[in-house]
Amino acid sequence: MNETSSQVGTPELPESPESLVKELARNGRAAQRILARASDAEKSAALRAAATAIRRAKGGILEANAKDVAAGEASGLSGAMLDRLRLDDVRLEAIASAIENVASLPDPVGDEIDRSIAPAGMTLVRRRIPIGLIGIIYESRPNVTADAAALCLRSGNAALLRGGSEAVHSNRALHAAFVEGVASAGLPADAIQLLPTQDRAAVGAMLKAAGLIDMIVPRGGKGLVARVQADARVPVLAHLDGICHTYIHTDAQPEMARDIAVNAKMRRTGICGAMETLLIDAAFPAAREVISALLDSGCVLRGDARACAIDPRIAAASAEDWDTEYLDAVLSIAIVDGLDQAMDHIANHSSGHTDAIVTADAEVAGRFLAEVDSAIVMHNASSQFADGGEFGLGAEIGIATGRLHARGPVALEGLTTYKWQVLGSGQARA
Amino acid sequence: MNETSSQVGTPELPESPESLVKELARNGRAAQRILARASDAEKSAALRAAATAIRRAKGGILEANAKDVAAGEASGLSGAMLDRLRLDDVRLEAIASAIENVASLPDPVGDEIDRSIAPAGMTLVRRRIPIGLIGIIYESRPNVTADAAALCLRSGNAALLRGGSEAVHSNRALHAAFVEGVASAGLPADAIQLLPTQDRAAVGAMLKAAGLIDMIVPRGGKGLVARVQADARVPVLAHLDGICHTYIHTDAQPEMARDIAVNAKMRRTGICGAMETLLIDAAFPAAREVISALLDSGCVLRGDARACAIDPRIAAASAEDWDTEYLDAVLSIAIVDGLDQAMDHIANHSSGHTDAIVTADAEVAGRFLAEVDSAIVMHNASSQFADGGEFGLGAEIGIATGRLHARGPVALEGLTTYKWQVLGSGQARA
Repeated sequence: MNETSSQVGTPELPESPESLVKELARNGRAAQRILARASDAEKSAALRAAATAIRRAKGGILEANAKDVAAGEASGLSGAMLDRLRLDDVRLEAIASAIENVASLPDPVGDEIDRSIAPAGMTLVRRRIPIGLIGIIYESRPNVTADAAALCLRSGNAALLRGGSEAVHSNRALHAAFVEGVASAGLPADAIQLLPTQDRAAVGAMLKAAGLIDMIVPRGGKGLVARVQADARVPVLAHLDGICHTYIHTDAQPEMARDIAVNAKMRRTGICGAMETLLIDAAFPAAREVISALLDSGCVLRGDARACAIDPRIAAASAEDWDTEYLDAVLSIAIVDGLDQAMDHIANHSSGHTDAIVTADAEVAGRFLAEVDSAIVMHNASSQFADGGEFGLGAEIGIATGRLHARGPVALEGLTTYKWQVLGSGQARA
Repeated sequence: MNETSSQVGTPELPESPESLVKELARNGRAAQRILARASDAEKSAALRAAATAIRRAKGGILEANAKDVAAGEASGLSGAMLDRLRLDDVRLEAIASAIENVASLPDPVGDEIDRSIAPAGMTLVRRRIPIGLIGIIYESRPNVTADAAALCLRSGNAALLRGGSEAVHSNRALHAAFVEGVASAGLPADAIQLLPTQDRAAVGAMLKAAGLIDMIVPRGGKGLVARVQADARVPVLAHLDGICHTYIHTDAQPEMARDIAVNAKMRRTGICGAMETLLIDAAFPAAREVISALLDSGCVLRGDARACAIDPRIAAASAEDWDTEYLDAVLSIAIVDGLDQAMDHIANHSSGHTDAIVTADAEVAGRFLAEVDSAIVMHNASSQFADGGEFGLGAEIGIATGRLHARGPVALEGLTTYKWQVLGSGQARA
């Protein structure tokens, strides 16, 4: 039920979460059909208008955000959660600029993937089209409201957004300004809808809306992603864990190995591309130096018996350590005998997100890149590069570790699908 | 539970369908890791060996098939079902040749999709890899056992096959010969497994095996596909309906329109690409001739009021006719006023499989091709061309009408996904 309905004063039949989602989906899909025909310039202009509208609505958005922050403080949200929630002039300008950045990215819709001639003579063209209606389910960061909306609209998709309860006023204010901008540029406001209720049953209805919502993207912590993956009947684009490995091979250049290891773990420990397990080859001559550099940088190390024997500051790892995403200045470390043992460890413990090797041996690197079955495999680079911006995609809707559709950092291309266009000259099939 | 276990004579714990599927999936995934590293030549040789083994096992396969046919006759299977089930020398040779044809198709694994340079200087390569373990659930045609197995193996995927009960002996004999060939060529027999039970609960367990089976392809009638789509927690590649439209625009060349309409409906009425609804523009001058040609070819026509007014042999269509896949010599026919009305009808009634326009007006055709949101859109060609072979793909695992991953005819490329390979020279992220 729309939570504002009691204020309207007109009697309304109670609406089930399913019928609410159905109605929103129908509106979104109708808007998407218009969006699918919008030109590159029209979509780009709508996004610039949305950025302008958000800048103009700054006062109201910051006021709404202050309400959320006050409520969060009153209810005892953690400092980290409050920080994610809080908007200010600088962060609001960053949100507006990010929308303009998406507006300037190339429009993938209409791109030709390939072209061939059928045996009967027709020309076959595979051409990119929008997916349709994308559901975005996210937590406390209000910037996701604008980021996800911008990426969906740029690629001709409609979006149905459902943000966290702790950011409800911020999300409504941001959403209202965004769609005001979209509408002022002549595109349908229903292209970007925000679920008008925080009722958790409505999230359940979104997850089950197969045929109405084409794809769900969860943005948030592991709990949210796990719930979405467990309950969804709609395809989900996501990663649950980032248990990323770096393997330092015998022939790794020692300073490079040290710098990559420290960067992969310590640059930012809380991102999904942060290294969680370091595998050092038993024959690598500079293990002690790499370990010292990690310890000196403030990292806690948990090792297998051979790792512990190298430095007394390493604690013994438990069996769970090899399957743990610390998202903290903690690292598990194992000594392995050669490439195959390293790849076996990765096959058993990786979450399929990003795994890296450091080596000067091109043949060994080639085997690692070919045989490790993760969405991203790296040679002589820090796993912290696992990011749409760092991959030159301009933005990302998320990082996916599933097997189908799109993997690794997903941006505009991953928000499209394709159709076959068959150009004939009267062919009938024999 | 393995239905042969009672014959073995050794006591076995009853196995739940879930644990059976888990065990098969584990075996299949282990075999797939070996397959993923197999070369083009190794996979091709294994398929040729499978074809040879099937030819060599001809006697046993035909004997097994005779058992199935006899059981089918005894249980009153329809003539069409018995025909689908029946193998003979010619059909068995066609199965073996089809495997050799797949062996000769280019191996997609390892293909580079694109390559770019990251802002920090690494080279980024997206490269095709197998999806993993594919579940194939099919009905009475035993040739699917070999066809699907060949396509999966060619693209480096393992397969878990579950054929129909009525073909159980044929499928077992074909499967045994196929994997004997695969093993003789040095690849793991477990790459292609046949579910050892006809227990329907095992199908349910396959559909729910998310994380163990990467994709399910149902091959069969609408009942099978609908059940798979309703119950699966594993991604499904399929189409439920082929409600295909042809729109004859005002400016269609009359003979071309007539020939395409008759071919699209009558060449083979039982395939998913057969036209089910014909839309004729009110201003098209040769509607009478097209209608006569269809009636003369033996087609039953059900029309809206304006269509009925053209020829008294046209019966009045009911509301359901516009949403019916006849798969028979029956066609619904409506008269429309212009492109937009035609596209509205298609948007409301198409199953998103294949829709076609006949027109000499390039601009009108361009709008139709861009705006009709089906997996395949055609200009001046018969919808009966909606087929992997006719698209030059060499074979097909199925035709998909979903929005994600692969659409239209799906062959080897659709059985792959990709990974990102990041080739650095020591980059740490700033």
